[in-house]
Amino acid sequence: MNSPINVNGKKYRRSERPVVVVCIDGGDPEYLQKFLADGVLPNLRRFIQEGYATVATGSMPSFTCPNNMSIITGVPTAKHGISGNFYLDTNTWEPVVMTGPELLRGETILAGFAKAGAGVVSITAKDKLRRQLGKGLDVSQGHISFSSECADRCTLAENGINNVLEYVGMAKPDMYSMELSLFVLEAGIRLLKERRPNLMYLSLTDFVQHKWAPEEEEARQFYQKLDDAFGRLAQEDIVLGLIADHGMSDKSNDEGEPNVIWLQDILDAEFGAGETTVVCPITDAFVAHHGALGSFVRVWSKGNINVRTIVDRIAAVEGIDLSLDKITACRLFDLPEDREADVVVISQKNVCIGSSAGLHDLTGLKGHRLRTHGGVTECKVPFILNRPLNAEYRNHVACSDIKSYQIFDYAINGTL
Amino acid sequence: MNSPINVNGKKYRRSERPVVVVCIDGGDPEYLQKFLADGVLPNLRRFIQEGYATVATGSMPSFTCPNNMSIITGVPTAKHGISGNFYLDTNTWEPVVMTGPELLRGETILAGFAKAGAGVVSITAKDKLRRQLGKGLDVSQGHISFSSECADRCTLAENGINNVLEYVGMAKPDMYSMELSLFVLEAGIRLLKERRPNLMYLSLTDFVQHKWAPEEEEARQFYQKLDDAFGRLAQEDIVLGLIADHGMSDKSNDEGEPNVIWLQDILDAEFGAGETTVVCPITDAFVAHHGALGSFVRVWSKGNINVRTIVDRIAAVEGIDLSLDKITACRLFDLPEDREADVVVISQKNVCIGSSAGLHDLTGLKGHRLRTHGGVTECKVPFILNRPLNAEYRNHVACSDIKSYQIFDYAINGTL
Repeated sequence: MNSPINVNGKKYRRSERPVVVVCIDGGDPEYLQKFLADGVLPNLRRFIQEGYATVATGSMPSFTCPNNMSIITGVPTAKHGISGNFYLDTNTWEPVVMTGPELLRGETILAGFAKAGAGVVSITAKDKLRRQLGKGLDVSQGHISFSSECADRCTLAENGINNVLEYVGMAKPDMYSMELSLFVLEAGIRLLKERRPNLMYLSLTDFVQHKWAPEEEEARQFYQKLDDAFGRLAQEDIVLGLIADHGMSDKSNDEGEPNVIWLQDILDAEFGAGETTVVCPITDAFVAHHGALGSFVRVWSKGNINVRTIVDRIAAVEGIDLSLDKITACRLFDLPEDREADVVVISQKNVCIGSSAGLHDLTGLKGHRLRTHGGVTECKVPFILNRPLNAEYRNHVACSDIKSYQIFDYAINGTL
Repeated sequence: MNSPINVNGKKYRRSERPVVVVCIDGGDPEYLQKFLADGVLPNLRRFIQEGYATVATGSMPSFTCPNNMSIITGVPTAKHGISGNFYLDTNTWEPVVMTGPELLRGETILAGFAKAGAGVVSITAKDKLRRQLGKGLDVSQGHISFSSECADRCTLAENGINNVLEYVGMAKPDMYSMELSLFVLEAGIRLLKERRPNLMYLSLTDFVQHKWAPEEEEARQFYQKLDDAFGRLAQEDIVLGLIADHGMSDKSNDEGEPNVIWLQDILDAEFGAGETTVVCPITDAFVAHHGALGSFVRVWSKGNINVRTIVDRIAAVEGIDLSLDKITACRLFDLPEDREADVVVISQKNVCIGSSAGLHDLTGLKGHRLRTHGGVTECKVPFILNRPLNAEYRNHVACSDIKSYQIFDYAINGTL
């Protein structure tokens, strides 16, 4: 039982203490910088001073789904195949949703550990991520997988746990609230105390970061509550790994209006309607708090317009960071070619990209500045361990760049 | 005398111990990885285990001159202006050499410290870098600036020291030898023991890394000698910072021949001779060990060919990593626009770019595989301190990406 566990070609040791990884959705380094400077994060400060901390490179696009999949598989997007919330099937010209487990290639570290006899818990904020996180996790064998969004509907058969609201002692959190994330952490703390699983993944949601900048009081309150929960997790003699899926940038102009490039409108005006299709893979529905606007979109050509012509037209738009053909984008960002568009478009830090102005509902912003992600400027994330690196991994960090998808490797194999 | 020293907008404290920064020219992280794994670098291992180590991002292009200037000014290339060994003056259509001090913008940290009353020493391997490193360093005030290449010709008036060969106790090293670098270190150790300057910069040369891969015995010998010298430096109760200007990649094919894109030939065939000018800013002369081939070149249009057409033609060449117009390149890589070409071209890790086949002399390779640099794939470098970070800088590394040009900042302000 002491042999290492092999997942996607990487060996993981069987840790003596539980390993808990928390993904702080949208946890841009700027929040940490601000609140550490203000001295209001005593537990995070202690981890940083006594454990290990750096800034890691996340997967592109800097969206939730690809990065959660990279984190729990330990491999880049090209390997696990989930490069966004959907891609376009060029046979049917219909978008294919990628948030289900069936398109995920390879095994998750969670499933690998569960199969090897370890106790595994996966909790996430939004239910749409739950099935992917729980891929291969047999809850009939004592493992647990649920979302705080559907905490009131958990069953032993589906989630490995029931009566979760009562168990955690919290009311069902609202879909758009900081409590949706805090519930995940409280559930994790309770399960850790009572069941002490070997491996736990707690994935939050970025409602707060989409809505509030580091300077705003609500963001500070949220981070202080996170810090408090992290402190209570760490008290349980665990290895705690903290990571984010992506950062978050203000993408509004001086008037407070979203700085949007309406790319489908530009391409339709240039090439005619129907010649190109812009897909915004940040989300599968036009959700309220960011209007489905991000800094990474995909463009397919129906076939009449040469791809290079499209690449060049987009490159000439002000606010574009990179306009790339498929092969170049896949090479630069380790993306799966079979699910990539003809053209990959990334905007600059303060700019986002939409399809057609008429297709995005921005009323959900309700006077808030637009904060979102998806670009290269949002792919640097905090990477924090509550315990120091061991000698082998101290050598590693002197010679190799750290990716966010290595957080399980470092937490499991790399700490004292 | 205890007030901080301000250089280019950054404050540096007056360190109680001497601060010595060594730039390991071409010190790709792969060398460190190999020799640490082999256990043959006891001093570097101790720094990594007991001090601080990470992989930092260097300046682009990943050449010696821009990165040395970034390191000693503490600012990116866009600020200090030295973006290669030369650029094209489009008024005269003649290349302008950028290796002199006159085109360097802003002050160096060395000069800033010297003016503030600190004792400063700058030693480099090749004399062409010496004048830039010594900019603003008044050797009549007790400061020292010389190169091992011209160690036999040092005068008090020009270098602040004479009889250097005798002083160091080594013969004059050959221009193409590992001793050219080792001489720099031995001179530094002797000066540190005898004069104990407050600030010292020791910049080596990459002859060894251009010639030998991490698997080759000569590379190992060199790194063991470096490690030995670093150990003796560290014995003098100093803060030691180790950095590299750029990495190094094998750019030969399976037959051992250089994997070259002859870009001027391609562009001449496409657009006609004289319409475009390709400049290879890796070096100012076609030196023996890499034939002036690197992974970053500049292309100017005479005016008849549209820049976007050139960008597209180059993007279609196999082996190209990025083909970018001036504005995009300057934004992505923080380059000075007034010295940038119409098109910036970067090749992939295993490929290099030349001008015309007939203009490069590759006989100097003498059967060696071509190893060179210049691209994005060679801009990650080791960043090592022999002492641990203080609390403030431990917080920094949790929230911000480290650039190689911050090595003086970290060594001076960031260590215990």
